[in-house]
Amino acid sequence: MKTINIGILGYGVVGAGVAKLLKTKQKLLESRINAVLNLKTIADIDTTTDRGIDLGTTDLVPDADKIISDPDIDIIVETIGGETFAKQFIFKALENKKHVVTANKALLAGFGNDLVKTARKNRVDLAFEASCGGCMPIIKTLRETLVANDIKSMSAILNGTCNYILTKISKEGLGFEEALKQAQELGFAEAEPSLDIDGFDTAHKLAILNSLAHGMEINLKDIHVEGIRNITPVDIEFAKSFGYTIKLLAIGKKHKNHVEARVHPTMIPETNPLSHVDKSMNAIAINADATGQTMLYGHGAGMMPTASAVLSDIADIARNIISGTNRRVPILGYPEENIKAIPILPMAQLYIRYYLRFEAQDNPGVLSKISGILGENNISIESVHQKGKKHNGKVPVVMIVHKAKEEWVQKALKEISKIDSVVGNPVIIRIEEIDQG
Amino acid sequence: MKTINIGILGYGVVGAGVAKLLKTKQKLLESRINAVLNLKTIADIDTTTDRGIDLGTTDLVPDADKIISDPDIDIIVETIGGETFAKQFIFKALENKKHVVTANKALLAGFGNDLVKTARKNRVDLAFEASCGGCMPIIKTLRETLVANDIKSMSAILNGTCNYILTKISKEGLGFEEALKQAQELGFAEAEPSLDIDGFDTAHKLAILNSLAHGMEINLKDIHVEGIRNITPVDIEFAKSFGYTIKLLAIGKKHKNHVEARVHPTMIPETNPLSHVDKSMNAIAINADATGQTMLYGHGAGMMPTASAVLSDIADIARNIISGTNRRVPILGYPEENIKAIPILPMAQLYIRYYLRFEAQDNPGVLSKISGILGENNISIESVHQKGKKHNGKVPVVMIVHKAKEEWVQKALKEISKIDSVVGNPVIIRIEEIDQG
Repeated sequence: MKTINIGILGYGVVGAGVAKLLKTKQKLLESRINAVLNLKTIADIDTTTDRGIDLGTTDLVPDADKIISDPDIDIIVETIGGETFAKQFIFKALENKKHVVTANKALLAGFGNDLVKTARKNRVDLAFEASCGGCMPIIKTLRETLVANDIKSMSAILNGTCNYILTKISKEGLGFEEALKQAQELGFAEAEPSLDIDGFDTAHKLAILNSLAHGMEINLKDIHVEGIRNITPVDIEFAKSFGYTIKLLAIGKKHKNHVEARVHPTMIPETNPLSHVDKSMNAIAINADATGQTMLYGHGAGMMPTASAVLSDIADIARNIISGTNRRVPILGYPEENIKAIPILPMAQLYIRYYLRFEAQDNPGVLSKISGILGENNISIESVHQKGKKHNGKVPVVMIVHKAKEEWVQKALKEISKIDSVVGNPVIIRIEEIDQG
Repeated sequence: MKTINIGILGYGVVGAGVAKLLKTKQKLLESRINAVLNLKTIADIDTTTDRGIDLGTTDLVPDADKIISDPDIDIIVETIGGETFAKQFIFKALENKKHVVTANKALLAGFGNDLVKTARKNRVDLAFEASCGGCMPIIKTLRETLVANDIKSMSAILNGTCNYILTKISKEGLGFEEALKQAQELGFAEAEPSLDIDGFDTAHKLAILNSLAHGMEINLKDIHVEGIRNITPVDIEFAKSFGYTIKLLAIGKKHKNHVEARVHPTMIPETNPLSHVDKSMNAIAINADATGQTMLYGHGAGMMPTASAVLSDIADIARNIISGTNRRVPILGYPEENIKAIPILPMAQLYIRYYLRFEAQDNPGVLSKISGILGENNISIESVHQKGKKHNGKVPVVMIVHKAKEEWVQKALKEISKIDSVVGNPVIIRIEEIDQG
């Protein structure tokens, strides 16, 4: 039986999960793949802390180069994260003609196009199933399963921290700060949570998924990103009364010559399966022309779910090696020469349906002023709601408006916030029906 | 660019869907796979009916042998269905060293082990993503994604006809016969619906999925099968009042040296995502040791979703051919020499939680008699409900009983149905909590 040697860079939570699977599932993997997946070396600056894994003959070393330059190692798993050491090591590993498996979405979103070029030049593979949606096989589904489909839209919950916090606000009526604090205490949110709650992590993943769905270069910078800091129980209550749930969605849609790509809190109908994805779970709904709507659901993070996804990549590469082939499926689902720079439409140009909430002094003229400004900006009101109790003389005025151009809405909101009796900034939450075709 | 020649046996709905994708998505497929997927020939006894597809240079012939014996054809797609011609043609195609793609679950469930042996002997591939769950990538997920997982359990809605009927009964209070009639009128059920509504189609799929999940021989005959003919709005109402939904589930669980495999109407908590899978949609929840619970959801049947799954198999085989490899992933996920005959536990030996409903004359002694018989058979009652209105002097008595051995329950029910004041046969619906780990 052929032996395939593996090295892991970074012995943190995910690295330890990968080591654990390679050690405890050795027999299962051999019986499935017909090869020995041998964990030869792990590199981490901390070589002393016990991670509770019996490493057997595996070396734990402080120097990454012991892996990157080891001629016997076939596959390198990068589980360091971040964009400094990980970036340097991955480029060097690819140059040394090692296949690389990584879960590093920030790195892929920022430098993926260069990484793909480097892998191509060196005739090695770069695999990243664990980068998006944890153990949901979304990368494989886009690269292999939906091969005969044009992907019309993707709507996804890709950040467990945000989904946990939104579930807490929604089910227990907590405020954002309190929900975040609870999430941090339970380990569902980082001490420095910005990457998650401000939507950047979700945007990294959307940049990768867009590329795979449409054969386009990875483009992070043009994705519109908003996080969940301003979501309040008041808006969640209003959403419920309209039959909606609020989720932080990654939305990717294909138009004729453009792509739409945005991350923001979104009201979705509670009849849509995505609205039942709670706590730290992830899910993606894909609407493709042949399949209609499909959905994948699973743990988007965590030690073992992420490690499971890394192992599926390792197995794919191992199967290539023992089959005497290489780079059997193109890294981004299309051969590099066929990948195009498809532009992302600026947010200002999109037509969206909106939930708008204004805090107004209870002044008989204010509703007429607000509707007047909306009308002047071509924004047509679908319904007006004024259910809330008066609080310090203020009442929330909620409007659902028909699809309107984002730039018109932003202009109108700026004008509305200048009305004397309107207090603070208007709240804007976009509404998506999500095609269930 | 290399050309790969394809033949389709059977130009019905699915065959036409496959032809349509090969014709209309030719450019997309070329740009992804870097090969021309050329539909060379279609064979069907009906060569005259217009299926609305521009076949271009593709031949439509009445004789299957024109495909099976064509030395230029690399991949044969079987979309005839059934177990007579399809069986004969597939065996012959494999013997002629053609790769075969099929959606024929009945054939795979009945003769899959022999088909796998024949494919192995002839060094060709046999692919069947479209056989289970339509366009949900369940075959690929079990064979490739979950490679480092032990699959603990699978719970799946795999028959769109049954799910449509159950949704109708549940949401609109229809009786079974009326719901079936509506399903037939709308094309969701066949004129001869037994294969679907009596659970056999679901059992075929479970036999295939069990094999892939556990590396076991395909075993249809030992799966316990019950259909949905006896489901009434009364039981659905009771289920709702307990927080349950009734679905026809395929349940596969792995025990140490055995597998549990059964198809029957099942009460599942309405907090479980499967309970929101409505109408003709399919879904599978998989609980595996590394990933925890994951779920796939999508159209389980229909022309284009099924064709999309067939195309993913064609693409996989095409990628093998242009990569100069063959049979890269074993047909059943494990190399044939590692596949074991893992026994399926007899239903009588399983421990399950039950919903039981008796129709009783309103007689003060009857409850004591029923409970007495349950007690004598080691069955412990969790709760008793007697909510329904009296009807012709009869009242429904509903009991939820703690986990008990199926054979004890069957024995007790036989005794209970002999009580004078118990009318008709007791209703038994099994309850599953479905681990959401």
